[in-house]
Amino acid sequence: MQGQRIDVVSEKPYPVFLGAKLEELGEYLRTRLVEGTHLIIITNPTVGELYLDSLQKGLKDFRVSTIIVPQGEEEKSLDRISELTSEAIKLGADRKSVVLALGGGVIGDLAGLFASLFMRGIPYVQIPTTLLAMVDSSIGGKVAVNHPAGKNLIGDFYPPLAVWSDFSTLETLPWEEMLNGLAETVKHALIADESFLSFIEENQERVCQRDMDLYKELTARSSAVKVKLVSEDEKEQGKRMLLNYGHSFGHALEAEASYKGITHGQGVSIGMVAASYLALERGMLTIADVARTIKLLKVLGLPVEIAQKEPQKLLELMGADKKNHQGQKVLVLLKGLGQAIVVRDAQDEEIYRAWKKVIV
Amino acid sequence: MQGQRIDVVSEKPYPVFLGAKLEELGEYLRTRLVEGTHLIIITNPTVGELYLDSLQKGLKDFRVSTIIVPQGEEEKSLDRISELTSEAIKLGADRKSVVLALGGGVIGDLAGLFASLFMRGIPYVQIPTTLLAMVDSSIGGKVAVNHPAGKNLIGDFYPPLAVWSDFSTLETLPWEEMLNGLAETVKHALIADESFLSFIEENQERVCQRDMDLYKELTARSSAVKVKLVSEDEKEQGKRMLLNYGHSFGHALEAEASYKGITHGQGVSIGMVAASYLALERGMLTIADVARTIKLLKVLGLPVEIAQKEPQKLLELMGADKKNHQGQKVLVLLKGLGQAIVVRDAQDEEIYRAWKKVIV
Repeated sequence: MQGQRIDVVSEKPYPVFLGAKLEELGEYLRTRLVEGTHLIIITNPTVGELYLDSLQKGLKDFRVSTIIVPQGEEEKSLDRISELTSEAIKLGADRKSVVLALGGGVIGDLAGLFASLFMRGIPYVQIPTTLLAMVDSSIGGKVAVNHPAGKNLIGDFYPPLAVWSDFSTLETLPWEEMLNGLAETVKHALIADESFLSFIEENQERVCQRDMDLYKELTARSSAVKVKLVSEDEKEQGKRMLLNYGHSFGHALEAEASYKGITHGQGVSIGMVAASYLALERGMLTIADVARTIKLLKVLGLPVEIAQKEPQKLLELMGADKKNHQGQKVLVLLKGLGQAIVVRDAQDEEIYRAWKKVIV
Repeated sequence: MQGQRIDVVSEKPYPVFLGAKLEELGEYLRTRLVEGTHLIIITNPTVGELYLDSLQKGLKDFRVSTIIVPQGEEEKSLDRISELTSEAIKLGADRKSVVLALGGGVIGDLAGLFASLFMRGIPYVQIPTTLLAMVDSSIGGKVAVNHPAGKNLIGDFYPPLAVWSDFSTLETLPWEEMLNGLAETVKHALIADESFLSFIEENQERVCQRDMDLYKELTARSSAVKVKLVSEDEKEQGKRMLLNYGHSFGHALEAEASYKGITHGQGVSIGMVAASYLALERGMLTIADVARTIKLLKVLGLPVEIAQKEPQKLLELMGADKKNHQGQKVLVLLKGLGQAIVVRDAQDEEIYRAWKKVIV
């Protein structure tokens, strides 16, 4: 295999393969699974059309079934888990079957939760095909579906057998999807790696031009930050919370728009700007730090402000964040670029002022 | 606290309190949880009516909410998990909330799976109020709901914070429910503890007379077998499978009757007799062993045969067992009273003959 392997520290450690080839997954699985193991590929129509053939090419030593799930975030539901269970039983799945989650974050979250629950848990492999899934959602074992009362409200920590990232799948990714991953990539640089931040800035043109050689390094470095943080804190008791940078604000924007009209990447981007204004007010960031953040996000085509929103409404929506505890909002703030901390004493007034800074 | 404490070996070890008092759970929880922790009691109308007051009496240092779930096995569903999620959110539950599962196996399985999934997992305490739940389902961390394609098909291994068994709740238990627990108790004796088998035989009259002093010892010894086996094999890769003794046959009877008209205990009882005939044919048990098993089950009022069933149909239903692997039926058989082994080479012909022995 070409590419790179990083191992995630976990109750059940697992490898993340960066720059692997879809065709070669079978070769790796032969070292982990007995011949003839029943593999269930779960994917969606678009990704299936593009990549099922390449993936299946390497799986000739296994019994392979495929389940195609319709596209869209609304498929992350308990109803879909129930459907997958019916289909798996029809396909003869048992406790030794293994799920392959081929797709972006929706497929990874859904197929991962299905695998965690089917017959009390069968193994699964994450095969992310979007930048967001590669650098973020496929790593760390968080799986979930949505509920009317909140996103990812029903889920589990369930480490995969392995993560298998084939960067060539990024070539077909729509730019809007790429931006979702770039927002998380900038986040990784901001919270944990200033030299990576400089690297993105220095290569911003190549990023915008979709230079695939550049994306290999970008994806590998961004994934490495995620691997490092989840390895230090699998169950999100401490360091892993830093990955929520920009998300408390961003989720409020997404919720306010009922998850339509604003992408996750856009929400996180504006959220990081709001959080940096709050840190500025606290003297944790300089005005130059904030300006540098804003400049980079803008160059990449990510929004740094939003029109016609009601700060009070957004503040209230932040009250529903899973990370909050007993009514106290829990935020991640930067204390310098490349360094983040969890803040448990944020006052509504300062959050309100931060919102005001990004609403035009 | 009076009573006895046994610790379960687990990825997350936890104590089983046998002969504890409902009123004293709060005292114990104060040593494990911070004051003011939000406790969500999940129970059903009958159990709630009988025991909510006693339980709540000890919980004054906590914020306590209660969710009443309708009675019945059909409540073990993903739909009910979704409902519980809605109600928990309305009650202001967050990641620090703790579930108290007050009831029998249905409540324990359902509330346990809910706890394992809500916000990716919050702690829960098993408070079993039936003999079956005390000696079996509350111990070992198995939680699940049913699916049209099979019982307990969607679930998790999710160790509780603690198991809190108040034997006095057995006083109100209907005899039919008691029999479900007695079937598992005899099973525990048969697979792992011949001296316990003798103890039950010697005290069979007191068992039938519901002598509560006797039940204390019976429940404690039966629970101890379960604790021992799940401690040796939490994820059911080996020894824990022995607990399925009688269940492969019994589940087929339950499924054939669509889980109506035959209780779990009745299914397991007949299943153990069928399995002992199979072991007899293989020379693993003597005719005296089989006779002793049948005699004890009969004395307790458990069935040892069943009328008007089609052995071929039951054989086919056994093909759907979760424990099977690649079409091969996996059975537990005794190689002497008090000793069980997993058998992976059982032939359909001998299983058929075993069925014939218990069908009249």
